[in-house]
Amino acid sequence: MTLLSHISRRQPRLGLCYLRVHGVRYSSISTPPTHPTIHSPSEPIVRDSFTRISKFWIPTGGITPTENEDAHAKLIRAGYLRQSHAGIFHMLPLGQRVQEKLENFIDKHMSQLGASKVSLSSISSQALWQQTNRLEGYGPELFRFTDRKDVPLLLAPTHEEEITTLVAKTTKSYKSFPLRLYQIGRKYRDEIRPRQGVLRSREFIMKDLYTFDYSLSSALTTYEQVRAAYHRLFTELKLPFLVAEASSGDIGGDLSHEYHLATPIGEDNIISCNSCDYVANEELASSRLRPAEGVSSPSIWRGVSKDRSTLINVWYPDSFSDDDINTYAIKSVLPELDSSLNDSTPFWSSIAPGSDGAPESRPQRLVNIIDYRLGSVHQDTSPDALLPEDSNLDLSTLTTEYITSSADGSPLNIIRIREGDNCPRCHAGKLKFQKAIELGHTFHLGTRYSAPLEAQVSVPSNLLEDNGAASTSAGELTTVTMQMGCHGIGMSRIIGAVADHLADEKGLNWPRAIAPFEVVVVPGKKDEKDGVMVSEFLANSQAARPLDVLLDDRSESLPWKMRDADLIGYPIIVILGKGWHSDRLCEVQCRRLASISHVLLEDLPIHINRLLFQL
Amino acid sequence: MTLLSHISRRQPRLGLCYLRVHGVRYSSISTPPTHPTIHSPSEPIVRDSFTRISKFWIPTGGITPTENEDAHAKLIRAGYLRQSHAGIFHMLPLGQRVQEKLENFIDKHMSQLGASKVSLSSISSQALWQQTNRLEGYGPELFRFTDRKDVPLLLAPTHEEEITTLVAKTTKSYKSFPLRLYQIGRKYRDEIRPRQGVLRSREFIMKDLYTFDYSLSSALTTYEQVRAAYHRLFTELKLPFLVAEASSGDIGGDLSHEYHLATPIGEDNIISCNSCDYVANEELASSRLRPAEGVSSPSIWRGVSKDRSTLINVWYPDSFSDDDINTYAIKSVLPELDSSLNDSTPFWSSIAPGSDGAPESRPQRLVNIIDYRLGSVHQDTSPDALLPEDSNLDLSTLTTEYITSSADGSPLNIIRIREGDNCPRCHAGKLKFQKAIELGHTFHLGTRYSAPLEAQVSVPSNLLEDNGAASTSAGELTTVTMQMGCHGIGMSRIIGAVADHLADEKGLNWPRAIAPFEVVVVPGKKDEKDGVMVSEFLANSQAARPLDVLLDDRSESLPWKMRDADLIGYPIIVILGKGWHSDRLCEVQCRRLASISHVLLEDLPIHINRLLFQL
Repeated sequence: MTLLSHISRRQPRLGLCYLRVHGVRYSSISTPPTHPTIHSPSEPIVRDSFTRISKFWIPTGGITPTENEDAHAKLIRAGYLRQSHAGIFHMLPLGQRVQEKLENFIDKHMSQLGASKVSLSSISSQALWQQTNRLEGYGPELFRFTDRKDVPLLLAPTHEEEITTLVAKTTKSYKSFPLRLYQIGRKYRDEIRPRQGVLRSREFIMKDLYTFDYSLSSALTTYEQVRAAYHRLFTELKLPFLVAEASSGDIGGDLSHEYHLATPIGEDNIISCNSCDYVANEELASSRLRPAEGVSSPSIWRGVSKDRSTLINVWYPDSFSDDDINTYAIKSVLPELDSSLNDSTPFWSSIAPGSDGAPESRPQRLVNIIDYRLGSVHQDTSPDALLPEDSNLDLSTLTTEYITSSADGSPLNIIRIREGDNCPRCHAGKLKFQKAIELGHTFHLGTRYSAPLEAQVSVPSNLLEDNGAASTSAGELTTVTMQMGCHGIGMSRIIGAVADHLADEKGLNWPRAIAPFEVVVVPGKKDEKDGVMVSEFLANSQAARPLDVLLDDRSESLPWKMRDADLIGYPIIVILGKGWHSDRLCEVQCRRLASISHVLLEDLPIHINRLLFQL
Repeated sequence: MTLLSHISRRQPRLGLCYLRVHGVRYSSISTPPTHPTIHSPSEPIVRDSFTRISKFWIPTGGITPTENEDAHAKLIRAGYLRQSHAGIFHMLPLGQRVQEKLENFIDKHMSQLGASKVSLSSISSQALWQQTNRLEGYGPELFRFTDRKDVPLLLAPTHEEEITTLVAKTTKSYKSFPLRLYQIGRKYRDEIRPRQGVLRSREFIMKDLYTFDYSLSSALTTYEQVRAAYHRLFTELKLPFLVAEASSGDIGGDLSHEYHLATPIGEDNIISCNSCDYVANEELASSRLRPAEGVSSPSIWRGVSKDRSTLINVWYPDSFSDDDINTYAIKSVLPELDSSLNDSTPFWSSIAPGSDGAPESRPQRLVNIIDYRLGSVHQDTSPDALLPEDSNLDLSTLTTEYITSSADGSPLNIIRIREGDNCPRCHAGKLKFQKAIELGHTFHLGTRYSAPLEAQVSVPSNLLEDNGAASTSAGELTTVTMQMGCHGIGMSRIIGAVADHLADEKGLNWPRAIAPFEVVVVPGKKDEKDGVMVSEFLANSQAARPLDVLLDDRSESLPWKMRDADLIGYPIIVILGKGWHSDRLCEVQCRRLASISHVLLEDLPIHINRLLFQL
């Protein structure tokens, strides 16, 4: 009823009129819905069934395309967003709509996972972050400030501390588990070099999901269910994503995964096999090693620990150079390594007591890390080479250690993986490198946050199979620390990455799921009324799924509006042009599928839906 | 198709089975939709048609109700929100859902107004706020900080500066006007005393609409359209709102309105007539004055200007006391008054040059403000009374002035309005006071921000009727400063105010439009499957509008679940209890309408919709 009165008020009988041209009477437009809808008399129209561009702010013009314009520049020129301050952006109506579509899309997938949506405050307290020892670790990337009472606060870049505290306080019963809570909101990180628009900005939108279980086995089931949800989600976005094994610190390599989109503008290196499904990020990737070939002469790369107490010699064959050293591999056996230094040699001397009374400081430990290719060469290395020539240290004052294999006992490879190295998983494959953007990650946290923040729950012992408590009676309660996971998706990043991935020389392009509108109807200058009728018909179709339609009702020329539509990147463009006047045919363009067809109005909804399901 | 397979997968044939008990076969459940829905094979289920409480986190228990528990305490106990830091809140799933419903509701009304949705950054720059001279005015209420490069930033409490800058940069053509942009997002204000939960918090959600027109007459049309939209919006929420005339500074009293909900916990004073529709806030309210009665003796109230250069004597009849002085009335004739001081007498002396070399400082001007009731008494006041007895000032060094009438020439009333005073608009009415919470405001800004931020547009002169440029030729362009309006709605406040307004001793209560769910289905312990069937039936009803349904599938007793439902405040509770077992009757409770009925399943959707439209 409402819909009908709406149509007739704005465009009396016009829809019906044109539909009769085709000799078909669509009950969807010409008769009221079959059930009596109850509305209070004062209730206004529920919503427009399509959007008019004249009522939807898209600032256009004034910006000239540059040569080799990147996707970020296209997002600005097409009117999706604007930078307000360095690395900080305003979303304009088109961008806001993409963001809202993406949020609804993620909501759907999180709901399928049984996750409940929350909205945590953006302001957190520095005291809370001190409890988990992260305040210093984040360093200058945290926006910090104090309130009028000098309480130290921060703008949260992530919410483990807050959600763990919240759940610890409110959730007492094991019956609440598994518990899955997520939010979609603004995060803050004071990037030293914000760049590439929303791909690396200082204020950005994240989806962050936190999972809570009372046992490790249940937490691992949760982890697998989240992974499955991420697969469904990225698959439905129709993005060619890569899932890379990532490092999860002490916990083990199979409990952290990254979801990437390969792109030349990416800042991550993803290494994958050209034969099997092995994919890993640079930090975790390994290659199948060739047996060491004969005797090599050693070279030395020198490092130092973050606290400067440990000196590190890395011994490797002189057929390689310092540039080939894989600091991730060194960190895997010696996590204390400070990998941020270009030159560690200043620390290879003891510092004499200063005039200001500073005590003498000097390293206490010397660790030698030997690449497997050198075999037993380290036995032969001259003690003279253990320290640089100009060092004033005395070897006898240092504890000297040797590391010759990985933590799991396998040969230690400290040389960077190179394109064409052998896959570690299959026998035929060779490794290749791809630049990529990280769009999401899954991470099993264990008790990293629940232990310091004392998030505990009492569980009947018989439910805790994996802690070997099977012998206790069923009713007895055991207090356990919650097992957590955190699982992020970079919403702003998806927008930037999709824009980059699908843009061509004409403009942007959007997957159906997150396009600002699914269809734009572009009538010629004299066909505005026909445009209204076609838009209303598509938005209310009962012959197929109703479509999200924008009508370009501006008084510009048809070619101008078509160029603008190409730039903005609607998945489908419906043009009422020559064919419409001669034969009542709508021209349907889909640039991504390189498809142009001429379709009768009554066939339009199903035709467009068929195209959309490929996008 | 999707929906069907969804039902059968989870609850095979059960719905159909019970529907047959009533001898009715509902095509909505037993047959597929009549049109072929196109889905890609891999696309997962679009969404659940109802929500199970077992998958929706509501932390309950652990909090004991206090005597005279206020609505904020109920919001916490029922699981809507939790405080994270002083005046800062986390929204839990119930609260998040109310917030999202309210956002959709506001979106609908903004769309009807032709407003486009944007999302501006929460971080703004102090430099920008200096351009409009607001940085100091906001004072310690602004959360300020610097980034790693020492750029001074702030967390925006409102966005006039940002949006004006954005529109000034992007909108060049008069064809883009009228332009209406709004957002719904977080705002920040470092309240000195955050209190009453989300009613006065430091992080809160606002809807802020900004309007841009190229002429004053167009801006006034916009203002009236916004007012009409606000009326529709608050009416649809079924809240008994008050619209108060508010002060809009220099521009005039008819271009700013406040939207209030009357409540004893409110912090604003709203003055209204018991006979006509006169409503004004305390700042702007006036009363019809009685003629001055004979000669009164004067009392003096002393004040001082913010810059301490002007001393202020307010002369009023000694039948009143200092507590009756209306500082808003003084400010209306002398805006410089510092109304924050309890005692201004220290400033009524000159300060001698100090030992630290500070120059002598003394007031330069003395203004006498005379209440109309004193008639010409000020002529007779002894010069001795112009200064306090212990003042060391010399009258001859001061410029002395007298103010004896309002700016518009009417009699000057500096006595506070009191309950029972005469209405200034009608002749029969008496004024009454109400405590109220401000939920929204509309404000015509003129060029307050567009002038300093140089937001200008070129307009053909013939479109600018109201600037007297009618004689210029049609094609000639005139550059004008944009006319703006700002129009806020406190989203967090609406949630807190509605909770307060509708709560009773049993718990909360929500209007249909923003209830977390419209209906909760509460089955007995053994009736969980029936609960699923009833929920599915209501959520998919084609006999009436489909409902937003929550199923309480927890394994608690029926009375426990009913008490919990009362506390949470779902508009409608459907109980499968005794009547269900004996006669297949659902018990439908609506506490707000004091309605309990027993209804057959097939009648349930229409019965519930009828109740909901009263809520």
